[in-house]
Order: sequence, then structure tokens, then C-alpha cells
Amino acid sequence: MKIRIGIAGYGNLGRGVECAILQNPDMELFGIFTRRNPADVKTLTGASVYHIDNIETYKDSIDVLILCGGSATDLPVQTPALAEHFNVIDSFDTHAKIPEHFANVDAVAKASGNVAIISVGWDPGMFSLNRLYAGAILPDGEDYTFWGKGVSQGHSDAIRRISGVKNAKQYTIPVDSALEAVRSGVNPSLSVREKHTRECFVVAEEGADLAKIEQAIKTMPNYFADYDTTVHFISEEELSRDHSGIPHGGFVIRCGKTGLHGENKHIIEYSLKLDSNPEFTSSVLVAYARAAYRMNKEGQSGCKTVLDVAPAYLSPKSADELRATLV
Amino acid sequence: MKIRIGIAGYGNLGRGVECAILQNPDMELFGIFTRRNPADVKTLTGASVYHIDNIETYKDSIDVLILCGGSATDLPVQTPALAEHFNVIDSFDTHAKIPEHFANVDAVAKASGNVAIISVGWDPGMFSLNRLYAGAILPDGEDYTFWGKGVSQGHSDAIRRISGVKNAKQYTIPVDSALEAVRSGVNPSLSVREKHTRECFVVAEEGADLAKIEQAIKTMPNYFADYDTTVHFISEEELSRDHSGIPHGGFVIRCGKTGLHGENKHIIEYSLKLDSNPEFTSSVLVAYARAAYRMNKEGQSGCKTVLDVAPAYLSPKSADELRATLV
Repeated sequence: MKIRIGIAGYGNLGRGVECAILQNPDMELFGIFTRRNPADVKTLTGASVYHIDNIETYKDSIDVLILCGGSATDLPVQTPALAEHFNVIDSFDTHAKIPEHFANVDAVAKASGNVAIISVGWDPGMFSLNRLYAGAILPDGEDYTFWGKGVSQGHSDAIRRISGVKNAKQYTIPVDSALEAVRSGVNPSLSVREKHTRECFVVAEEGADLAKIEQAIKTMPNYFADYDTTVHFISEEELSRDHSGIPHGGFVIRCGKTGLHGENKHIIEYSLKLDSNPEFTSSVLVAYARAAYRMNKEGQSGCKTVLDVAPAYLSPKSADELRATLV
Repeated sequence: MKIRIGIAGYGNLGRGVECAILQNPDMELFGIFTRRNPADVKTLTGASVYHIDNIETYKDSIDVLILCGGSATDLPVQTPALAEHFNVIDSFDTHAKIPEHFANVDAVAKASGNVAIISVGWDPGMFSLNRLYAGAILPDGEDYTFWGKGVSQGHSDAIRRISGVKNAKQYTIPVDSALEAVRSGVNPSLSVREKHTRECFVVAEEGADLAKIEQAIKTMPNYFADYDTTVHFISEEELSRDHSGIPHGGFVIRCGKTGLHGENKHIIEYSLKLDSNPEFTSSVLVAYARAAYRMNKEGQSGCKTVLDVAPAYLSPKSADELRATLV
């Protein structure tokens, strides 16, 4: 009997989940739920499409529902609402609001007897795990998170809102010398500017004032003002030819000391280099869907984060097999 | 109320645990248990020393016992025996015998109601975790484990057994070009020889036949014959001046594909660079002692590996604090 997955929301993340399920023989896709007219949605694999308003009808046909909406407005509403009827997984990534989201989802999931795992992905997600493990092992130390090289959707959107900008893509790039300083074990104090640079590829409208656009980007508070930012004006053709991917990645590095007088140094480094940010996130979501299914089968309920999930639940292998082959 | 730790065995690992406890304010060291005459054991921190034969007497004073013996003969006997009276942690690292050791310990720990966590450290341990997480996320991929640069105690011992050798230290070194090939994402097939080289620093007895020693090392089956091995003859002074540390480390790298046609590649890399192999292992043991204590308080019992322990148990922070600061 395979684990039956539902997908709620069919953007990049939903399509990623649809593909990832094919790589996991213990799972099958029940269908995709959308706010659009189902007849208008063409899926990558020919999966069935349903309107999200009817989702409750299918509660006995779905073991775990993976929510692929956005963190700004979709998930704060959808995750608690759907946890009433389903085991759910989401990738809620507004770090500051995780405690509030957790509390909302936990109340519903506990009452309904379902398992909800929130904030699944790589940051929050795998990076959170690595910050936790490294910090627990080396309490006398510092950790550093670097992002990139990769596309920041939020920063690209911010550039597109500037008058005279037709299209834009922004890359967040970790500064090599900062990475090297951290890896050397000196636990440097690094300013925002010292850790990352920002590189922008901008398509301007015809006749737009390029100097003014560049100035507007570089001085934008929160987004760019605190960074060394480079702006390149390119054509729409160049943008779509050279910058259509959604790569990302990053590093979590902790350096800590041990010994009676802190005489020995240790560096723990975790890094990701991802061709497709949404497809990788989708793959993490699918692995945690397996965990949610198993935890619920064991009688567990309530909201969890990746920190609450024992690693073995993620693997299709049995505990015996894991001990024999992987530990 | 602090978590009261006992240490069984007082070699490099036991001393590392003694130091690591000082870095964890929620823990305190009850004492060290040894097979030697306790009066003859001088501890780094002035900790109390007891004879291991009397350890049962102290079962109500110790929350978790950390076993710091060797995997060859100590732990297969000690871990099951002591799990009858204590929550225990060990670093059993004979990979092939983990299933058998697990079964022996599990039977006792289940019957006694204690928690035992075995094979804790970095490999097995943190590397096992990383193989599991990466494999669950990227099922269509390959993983690679590299060790070093670091001292292999087993290989150093093997050299010391050769006639004419007074002392020796062996470093295992990952081959840079193999690491780069793996990181490039081509999932290369790598022979044993292509992944690691071995570098030996040997102190010969006066008048020994150096060519014969070098030949004996390089042709030693299992240990050296399958590797490119370099042998340096040095003096006892040079050995103690330049090679007295016990550094180690390594890499777990997985490259996998996602997308409908496997069109996107992803690289997950975890690496360790350790000044002191035993002190880092000790720090992992101590973090898992916290987990064992908490899991047992919740009513859990039986044998576990790192794969069975939810990450949050390792951290001294509360679940609320972790969600607010670290997820």
C-alpha cells in the first residue's frame, strides 16, 4: 500500500512535488488541488486536478497533503484549516512568524489527531537542523549562515517594482573572503555587507533613466542599501537566455573549541549547491511527508518542525536495513 | 537539577567527555569509573574516581553513563551489561557489527526500562545522519564518504607491529581530484585507490632495514596494498614534535537529480575538520547523553542509534526557544 499524496497549489513548488513523488516508489500522487479552474491546469505528469474547495471530499483518499502555497498569505490560513482534515506538510518560511504559525497549526492538529510538519525545506529546514546539531555538539562556538549563489525572488520582485524596470533577476552571493575567514576558525564578527554581495540583472523600459534606476536599487532600504550591489542592464533576450534558472544554495558553518582550555578547534560545515531551489525544497517536503505518515500511523498528532522528527522516519528503508547499511 | 553524568573508561575519550561536560551548564559530572586502581588515576578536573566493579552502587546518583571503552572488546560486553542499570551512550564503531550490538543492547534496555544510544560519534554518528538525510531527500543520486586528513589509529598500530619499527603515525588523506569530481556532480565510480592516499611517518629501530620496512608497509593487505602509500622515516623527536596531535575529519557528499527528466542537479556536502578526533567524538556523546536523559524521562526505553533521536532532544534550549531562534 503506497502513501497517497495530495498537492495543494500548483506553482513551481507543486510541480516539484509532482516530479519528486515519481522518485519515491513507496508513494503515489492522488491529485493536485488548485484555486484555478481544474480544466485549465495542465500537469507535468497527467495527474488529476481538483478544485481546492472540494478537497474535504477526498480526505479518505489522501494520507498526506503537501501545501505548496506562499508564506505571505496562503499558508497562514491554509495550513491550520487543512490540518483539521489531513496530515499536512508546509514550507512556511517567514522565520519571525514561525512560533505563531506553529501555535495556530498545533491547536488544530492536536484536536483533529493529525500530524502537521511546518517550515520544511532548506532554510528553514535542513539549515535549521544543521544549526541545531552543530550548536549542540560545539556549545563553545559560533555559527554562520551564508546564502547563495542564488536567485532571491523577494529582491528580484523589489527591483521590478521600480519605475522604468521591465524585468529583473537578483543574485545573492556569499563573499569568498568571509567564508574563508569563518572556515579558518577565527570566529570573525561580520557585518551584513561583509557576508554577501548582491548582483542585479535588469531589463529597463525603452528610454528609461538607467542611472536613476541604478540609484534607486542601490539605495533601497532593507533590500540593498546595506550591501555592495552591482547592477547590469541587459536585454530581455539576455535575461531569458542566461538567467532563467532558479539556482540557490548556501552554507551553515560552525567553529567551536573543545579541551580543558579550549585548545582544540573544530569546523562543521554543511553546504548546498542547488540547480533548482523549488525542486530541492519539494524533495525535502516529500521526504517529510513520509515521516508525517509514519508518525501519524504510530498515533502521534500535533504540529512539528524538522527538529522534532527523528531522522529514520524520512527514509523508505526499515530500521534494520538502515542499521545494517547506513549507520 | 542538572543531568548527572558518569564516565566509564578514562582514556582519550573519557578525558574528552570530562572536558565537554564543563561546556554544558545543564550537566554535571558525578564521577569516573575505571578498571585501574582509582587512587592511581589523576583526572583533568579533579573529578571523583571509582572502581568500575562498584558502579551499581551509584545507580541512583547517575542519570546517564557514557561508555568510553573500545569497540573491539570493551563495548560489546559493557554496553549490554550496564544498560541493565543505567541509561547509556556508547561510540561503538565496528560498522559491520552494529546490528548484532544493537540487538544485544536493545533486549537489556527494554527489559530494564533504560535508554541506550549506541554508535554515537561522527562516523558512525554525524556522517550516518548526513547519509540518511541526503539519501532521503535525493533518492536519485549517489553518496560518497571521504575520511581525513587525519590519523588512523588502526593503520598506525599496524605499522608499529612490523619488525624494526619503533613508532609510527599514519594519515589518511582524501584525494583532491576525487573530491572535485564528486562535487562536480558527475557521480564518478571511484576505486579505493582513487579516493584516499596514505602517508606514514615511521621511526625505525637503529640499524633496521628501511627498504624492507617500507616494502612491508606498502604491500600489507587490507591496510595499505590497495592504496598509494608514502613512507617517511623520521626521528622520535620529529614524530613527537610534528605528529603528536590526533586530527581527523572528512566529507559526506551526495549528488542527486530532480525534475521530470532529472534535468536539475543538487549537491549536498557535510564536512568536518577536527583538531582532536576524541574530543569531538566526546562532544557528540555528551549531546546525546542529554537526549537519552530526556527520552527516558518521557518513558522511552530500548536501544537507539542517532537515526532514532529527534534533533531537538540534543539541544539545551526549549522547543519554544528553538522555534523562535533557530528554525
